[in-house]
Amino acid sequence: MSIITLLTDFGSGSPYQAEMKGVLLASCRATVVDVTHDVPPRDIARGAYLLAAVARTFPTGTVHLAVVDPGVGTARQPLAIASGGQFFVGPDNGLLMPAARALGVVRSFAIDATAFARRPLSATFHGRDLFVPAAAALAAGLPIERLGRPASPPVELPADTPERSAGRVRGQVIYRDPFGNLVTNIPGSWLLDLPERLVLEHRRGRHAIRRARTYADAADGELLSLVGSSGTVEIALNAQEAGTMLGLDAGDAVIFIDSQ
Amino acid sequence: MSIITLLTDFGSGSPYQAEMKGVLLASCRATVVDVTHDVPPRDIARGAYLLAAVARTFPTGTVHLAVVDPGVGTARQPLAIASGGQFFVGPDNGLLMPAARALGVVRSFAIDATAFARRPLSATFHGRDLFVPAAAALAAGLPIERLGRPASPPVELPADTPERSAGRVRGQVIYRDPFGNLVTNIPGSWLLDLPERLVLEHRRGRHAIRRARTYADAADGELLSLVGSSGTVEIALNAQEAGTMLGLDAGDAVIFIDSQ
Amino acid sequence: MSIITLLTDFGSGSPYQAEMKGVLLASCRATVVDVTHDVPPRDIARGAYLLAAVARTFPTGTVHLAVVDPGVGTARQPLAIASGGQFFVGPDNGLLMPAARALGVVRSFAIDATAFARRPLSATFHGRDLFVPAAAALAAGLPIERLGRPASPPVELPADTPERSAGRVRGQVIYRDPFGNLVTNIPGSWLLDLPERLVLEHRRGRHAIRRARTYADAADGELLSLVGSSGTVEIALNAQEAGTMLGLDAGDAVIFIDSQ
Repeated sequence: MSIITLLTDFGSGSPYQAEMKGVLLASCRATVVDVTHDVPPRDIARGAYLLAAVARTFPTGTVHLAVVDPGVGTARQPLAIASGGQFFVGPDNGLLMPAARALGVVRSFAIDATAFARRPLSATFHGRDLFVPAAAALAAGLPIERLGRPASPPVELPADTPERSAGRVRGQVIYRDPFGNLVTNIPGSWLLDLPERLVLEHRRGRHAIRRARTYADAADGELLSLVGSSGTVEIALNAQEAGTMLGLDAGDAVIFIDSQ
Repeated sequence: MSIITLLTDFGSGSPYQAEMKGVLLASCRATVVDVTHDVPPRDIARGAYLLAAVARTFPTGTVHLAVVDPGVGTARQPLAIASGGQFFVGPDNGLLMPAARALGVVRSFAIDATAFARRPLSATFHGRDLFVPAAAALAAGLPIERLGRPASPPVELPADTPERSAGRVRGQVIYRDPFGNLVTNIPGSWLLDLPERLVLEHRRGRHAIRRARTYADAADGELLSLVGSSGTVEIALNAQEAGTMLGLDAGDAVIFIDSQ
Repeated sequence: MSIITLLTDFGSGSPYQAEMKGVLLASCRATVVDVTHDVPPRDIARGAYLLAAVARTFPTGTVHLAVVDPGVGTARQPLAIASGGQFFVGPDNGLLMPAARALGVVRSFAIDATAFARRPLSATFHGRDLFVPAAAALAAGLPIERLGRPASPPVELPADTPERSAGRVRGQVIYRDPFGNLVTNIPGSWLLDLPERLVLEHRRGRHAIRRARTYADAADGELLSLVGSSGTVEIALNAQEAGTMLGLDAGDAVIFIDSQ
């Protein structure tokens, strides 16, 4: 049985995510997996981060259906993407590309609404009326080339590139997790090249910070940096919220400095 | 494999929805689909709206198990309803009827607790102890007539009926969605009979409003009316929350007026 | 098909719970059931309560994977427990033991990370990298003895023992549910041995309280005690939140007194 995952900003209390499940299960008998419906409304960057973090753990053949779609009903392309043996279906606004690129070579197609959309196709809910039928077709084994013509080059989100020089690495917070940990885009190996004791510089100030292996290696309230579970540098406090303490969130720049 | 959906006001952090899943999976091997567990506590009208919005998307044979049940343990009937090839199981307080009526002719039965309830039957959790066994029996193929005697006429929620006269339509907000969009009970076709530029009148004031096809057809912050994904009139703002801006929510009356 | 349940404090909006699902579905085709991902961060006692409340409803052979793990990456044992025909996998911090003990005789094993962990094993996400592979192995039928050597005696959470004397019972609130009901650890039968009208004493004051069978047996706003759906005494208000009105939560002591 195929796996179809769902990621939306519809909220778990809305009917919209469940309407998608109903249409899905009426057209194919896939295993439906909720990634999340709690992407903040219209937050494409957050959705793209979550999808990329999650997709790499799923098996070959999985169809990821992702809908954070403030431009629904406009001329933006409806996309179906194949990459690394998995599939991504959703709007062309940057949401799918980080996950697809992370899995390998990206082949993208513009879904043919005339052939695949439900009738009537609503102007405001392509998740249910167009993306679900396309995802169901992929899950049932339709070759992706049959969904539509090759897409125009998909929209890409602006992305920060981390940098390093002697005794200094700079990057960006890309996710503040539910524990208040600040996940950055800095490769974990860069942190391991620096001394254990560093200074963390950010728009709100400077803090001493120590490299550790895991949260409980520190005293309560001690600021830590570690290589997180996605392989990049994470800023954390043991048993407290680093994001709250530092006042930082996704998008904020962070610099680690060897203060010797 | 049968599909059983769950809709409750138990919250996703409580044990209650998972206890229902455990009892379900111990008695049948259905595909269990979470519609939502985030109906506001005791909000029967919200639950009824969500169930009706979602049920029409599911395939024939689906069993919808819905529990928003402030009268649990009292003399209210435990209901099993067949309509349009689908089934609804839950308390007789109005929760099931809008969904059942929307699917066609309603046949309703009072579940025989003596025959179907778990032992001991708790006084406060019929979702787990009575409605789950009844839903599992339906999912396993038991004819609904075997669940109990025909029910007394089920309770119906009070419902507003939208009205129109020359250059004027009146209805009610029936749902404020997670994007702040205000879904009304006014048929979409009525909006299309009016001019593009209208006045929206409500208990907090009057606003100019323009008819559009989708959210992004408007400037940021411009008030829009459109035909929503459920086929009724929706009031929205592009990239902002109409409900917050207007101070309106489910139950509020709205009037669209041709101001020419 | 085996059943694997998931209980975490990762939040439904984080990637972590979905990463676990991806790794699970990549290694076995179990039915994955979300118990909850909304345990408050690091709240082991809450997680343990929820797991115990839920596990008893699941069928023989179910594997419960529970991760509330502030000590992740430290020397604490990774546990696999068999009890009453079900299995529990998670950290050795007290999280699993109330559920396991409630099902019967507990046999516990320390999972062999060398044999079962994914490579690389992150220091901060053993849920994904160690506990999922162990749970998948159990779901696929591996005898639990093969997961590792017998464990050192598992950590147990401190637990309050309710007491009674003539005309008086004392216990503790162990859960405040989403309706504001206060679930205690006092056996329901003890309440039934007391008169219908009692005094409730707690750290914030004293209230008259009446024994009832279910919520709607009382007037709006009348304080009730009843035997809840888990078999213990519950303090409730009809159509209102007892927890809010009394200012009580999990951990608070409560005393019921026969005031005659």
